Amino acid sequence: MHITALAGGVGGARFLRGLLAHVDRTPELAGTHVTVIGNTGDDITLFGLRVSPDLDTVLYTLGGGIHEGQGWGRADETHSVQGELAAYGVEPQWFGLGDKDFGTHVARSLWLGQGQSLSEVTARLASRWGLPELGVTLLPMSDTPVETHVVIEDEQGQRAVHFQEWWVRMQAEVPAQRFVVAGMDRATPAPGVLDAIRTADLVLLPPSNPVVSIGIILGVPGVRDALRGSRAPVVGVSPLISGAPVRGHADACLEAIGVESSAGGVAGLYADFLDGWLVAKEDADLQSSGRLTVEARPLLMSSIEATADIAGAAIDLGRRLARTTG
Amino acid sequence: MHITALAGGVGGARFLRGLLAHVDRTPELAGTHVTVIGNTGDDITLFGLRVSPDLDTVLYTLGGGIHEGQGWGRADETHSVQGELAAYGVEPQWFGLGDKDFGTHVARSLWLGQGQSLSEVTARLASRWGLPELGVTLLPMSDTPVETHVVIEDEQGQRAVHFQEWWVRMQAEVPAQRFVVAGMDRATPAPGVLDAIRTADLVLLPPSNPVVSIGIILGVPGVRDALRGSRAPVVGVSPLISGAPVRGHADACLEAIGVESSAGGVAGLYADFLDGWLVAKEDADLQSSGRLTVEARPLLMSSIEATADIAGAAIDLGRRLARTTG
Repeated sequence: MHITALAGGVGGARFLRGLLAHVDRTPELAGTHVTVIGNTGDDITLFGLRVSPDLDTVLYTLGGGIHEGQGWGRADETHSVQGELAAYGVEPQWFGLGDKDFGTHVARSLWLGQGQSLSEVTARLASRWGLPELGVTLLPMSDTPVETHVVIEDEQGQRAVHFQEWWVRMQAEVPAQRFVVAGMDRATPAPGVLDAIRTADLVLLPPSNPVVSIGIILGVPGVRDALRGSRAPVVGVSPLISGAPVRGHADACLEAIGVESSAGGVAGLYADFLDGWLVAKEDADLQSSGRLTVEARPLLMSSIEATADIAGAAIDLGRRLARTTG
Repeated sequence: MHITALAGGVGGARFLRGLLAHVDRTPELAGTHVTVIGNTGDDITLFGLRVSPDLDTVLYTLGGGIHEGQGWGRADETHSVQGELAAYGVEPQWFGLGDKDFGTHVARSLWLGQGQSLSEVTARLASRWGLPELGVTLLPMSDTPVETHVVIEDEQGQRAVHFQEWWVRMQAEVPAQRFVVAGMDRATPAPGVLDAIRTADLVLLPPSNPVVSIGIILGVPGVRDALRGSRAPVVGVSPLISGAPVRGHADACLEAIGVESSAGGVAGLYADFLDGWLVAKEDADLQSSGRLTVEARPLLMSSIEATADIAGAAIDLGRRLARTTG
């Protein structure tokens, strides 16, 4: 079976780890290959180094290097590099990078500087984290540098800040007026992205942020059309339970684009290509309608096992919704 | 008093620290300013980051951050970044950079990438290490990137390797056939370098490597002429005791350029501008001749105190040799 998943950061990565655990415990899924299309709208250049937070969260989570408590960054970190940069007066200091994490960014920046594409760089990084052995291919959504900016208004007036500044430094507490994805107009899908959607047996949308993770990937020219035209059913997992995100600031993001913060509101964003939608037990009142089949399940990713159950439910739903006979 | 010193790495930095200690304990030297012209021929781009080993050794030594045992790099280091780079298969691994040290190189590379000159970058780094408060200005010999390469012949045939590869990886055990300084033909002295030599009251040559440290600085167009024409006496401290370097591979370097590995051999390299030459007690047989006054002193920099005595002896000799009345 070939599964293609669109993924953001922490929520996406944890879902994918559960998906692999489910594949692992399910004999008839043996040989399943998972292609992950990762959001790169969060990417940022810090201290002259190129950082791809969502891709790295997927790598570290699947490869066993993640800091479990915070969900991003490396376990057992030291912070000497950033401490020195602070001593030298280098800004910003609101984005915490550990020393091991710096190793990734130095390697990425080195290879990008040598002319390799982000796809090629990501494949090299993924190889170290054992993704090929796990049956996983991680593709950036695009090799074109794009950056999500957030238009806000604060005491400095109306201005656009990098997504990370809004998300990390401001903790999304300053209301976003809108999101602007710099570079998206000239972005093209990375090699393999459209094929992975078109040729998959199942496309999954993990419970990633629908606006600034999945939404950004959907904005890459050609991706949305590929999802509409895929032979595979598209099954999503709601990132909201009773209207609230389990973590992150999806509600603030939805408010900015004028969409109700609810499982139904998010499904509406995917209406033109979504076939199956897993919602939490708490949202069981959401009805199937038209092409969309809704099922309620426990959706709290409280353990790898619980997450594997969610992934298993998504796969089962997808099988029942097959768009074409395989 | 304004002292200008040419300096390489460990030996130069330790001498300078002794010089400052001597100034500190000597009331009539109060207000002395020291301008250090640092060798940048050792500079190397590693992992996409610009590393200036000799400048950093001066900064860390004078600023109190040096690893005393090894003489270079930072005290209390961790090595996470380099460990990660190794895990990603990034070469080279023979040049050990600690995490704190990486902080310096990230800052330097960031600022250089923003278009600042190496002089400007070095001043910013020096400010963090308190050099202005110590009465020290550290100038790179040139803002033009130059790199010392070593022509060797080994099982791979005759080839040029970066100085650091020969010095660190090969431990100078493969004979050097010659040194080639890439970029020197278009190099100009950094702002302030020639003035610092011309307007000094005393020019000091610390016991740095005469070929690949002092020798490289002397190769910057204009520097040698400025030393010849300076109103200040030039006093040097022999880096060799009984023909052997106290540390480093000065003997291997001298052999490569066909100069005897002795205090007299080194003095010969400076013959056109050297006025005073401190040699070790063991080399007391070296005679003054022509313009050159030779004095024998204990030259082992075994402590800051002992080093301060050497620096004091150099200053005293310089005063007796004043080229012009001040």
